[in-house]
Amino acid sequence: MRVGIVGLGLIGGSLALALRGRYEVTGWSPSPGTRAAAGAAGVAIAADLGALLPADAVIVCAPLAEIVPTLERLAARSGNAVLIDVGSLKGPVAAYALRAPARARIVGGHPMAGTTATGFAAAEAGLFRDRPFLLVPTARSDEASLTLAGELARAAGGIVTVLGAEAHDRVVAVLSALPFLVAAALARAGAELAGSATASLAGPGFRDTTRLAGTPPSLAASMLAGNSPNVLEALARFRASLDALERAVATGDPATIAGALAELREVSSP
Amino acid sequence: MRVGIVGLGLIGGSLALALRGRYEVTGWSPSPGTRAAAGAAGVAIAADLGALLPADAVIVCAPLAEIVPTLERLAARSGNAVLIDVGSLKGPVAAYALRAPARARIVGGHPMAGTTATGFAAAEAGLFRDRPFLLVPTARSDEASLTLAGELARAAGGIVTVLGAEAHDRVVAVLSALPFLVAAALARAGAELAGSATASLAGPGFRDTTRLAGTPPSLAASMLAGNSPNVLEALARFRASLDALERAVATGDPATIAGALAELREVSSP
Repeated sequence: MRVGIVGLGLIGGSLALALRGRYEVTGWSPSPGTRAAAGAAGVAIAADLGALLPADAVIVCAPLAEIVPTLERLAARSGNAVLIDVGSLKGPVAAYALRAPARARIVGGHPMAGTTATGFAAAEAGLFRDRPFLLVPTARSDEASLTLAGELARAAGGIVTVLGAEAHDRVVAVLSALPFLVAAALARAGAELAGSATASLAGPGFRDTTRLAGTPPSLAASMLAGNSPNVLEALARFRASLDALERAVATGDPATIAGALAELREVSSP
Repeated sequence: MRVGIVGLGLIGGSLALALRGRYEVTGWSPSPGTRAAAGAAGVAIAADLGALLPADAVIVCAPLAEIVPTLERLAARSGNAVLIDVGSLKGPVAAYALRAPARARIVGGHPMAGTTATGFAAAEAGLFRDRPFLLVPTARSDEASLTLAGELARAAGGIVTVLGAEAHDRVVAVLSALPFLVAAALARAGAELAGSATASLAGPGFRDTTRLAGTPPSLAASMLAGNSPNVLEALARFRASLDALERAVATGDPATIAGALAELREVSSP
């Protein structure tokens, strides 16, 4: 099977490293430096975007704002190739699929893996191992294209879950965007109150809880902007729970606080 | 040097394991099961609390509510022994020191290390390695007692920082209590919106950011109740930053959001 990969940063580079042992993988990046780094690591590099075709699948690992434009360019002449994007939002891809060429085959993908590092230098073959790999059918996903996308996701080490585009974007608002916002606000509170001493005073708890604050701002901003209503809904849920905890803390009574914590843990149905 | 350790759970047990190679360490716990587990791991066990004396130092690793009562019992006959507690709040210890016997020697300690696991079974000699170990002088700390406490903290692997009791309690409100509250509210929001699928959908970011939600509720409740005003102040700071981010997200504009994120990273003086 011939697999093309557009974009060879953390995600695309890691997919290339994970899949090249099993498939005929060819990558391409608009950045000459990235092409050189991936080539030096043994990834076959195409002459240009179009040279990734013909293929059985092309995986689009571009920045969020570039995903639909890249899918558009590919779909014009992708033949039977299954186009799979790995962006963190699926609404725009679902909307594009509705107006894509009738014979295009498009599947949304989202590996729930990553680090706050970026670029091919941070890529590693094991990045997706045992991590959720979400697949989102579009109006241009036939059953065979979903099966192929699932094979690639599993070959990369992922554990596949299929869900709809709307559900996906609601879920990532609470599982990705909200933790990032909370980590960023917490890092700021730490800097304000503990100042430059934060690093010498903080234990592993503070460090883990603020790790996501190191997410590249441009990546975070596009993820938040493109999913604004869902993120605001997730924030409202978070605030309701934090408000309940704050009221309990204000009493200064351990039993009241323990009660509020226990109530929070009683999970209601989603 | 003879070192007694009261309480052999995660922290006390780990201190016993870390220090026993270098000092004559004797431990005691009110729990027969804990005494048996620590004894089976080769920790010398005293017949009762009083049998830890005479000693050069006694480290009190009791639950927060038991720390001052334990210090009181020990101080009545501690002779020259330096009493060191390792609780997560220092206000109560500082207040007790003011009314402690005039010859008592009392130093507050707080290793910024731990896991959400509890009990001697979770103890490990390396728990404090390269972690901050805060030392808080009290009205009953002479210079030699601080030096001795520093030696023990470093022998356990910690990196010592000395600060006052009030500053300590303000700092832990933002570096320990606030991350716990945020993690608990985030875990709840995840459970509400992603439900039982959370585990199969969440990536490492959500898991790291919610890890502290697994803190034992009784431990968390006493830490929050005993430091309520500082925790409310930390919450207010956190909310101010989160509010700014929420306003930016509501615009749906990537540049506005990136600007708000950049502003958050410009650290003001504490």
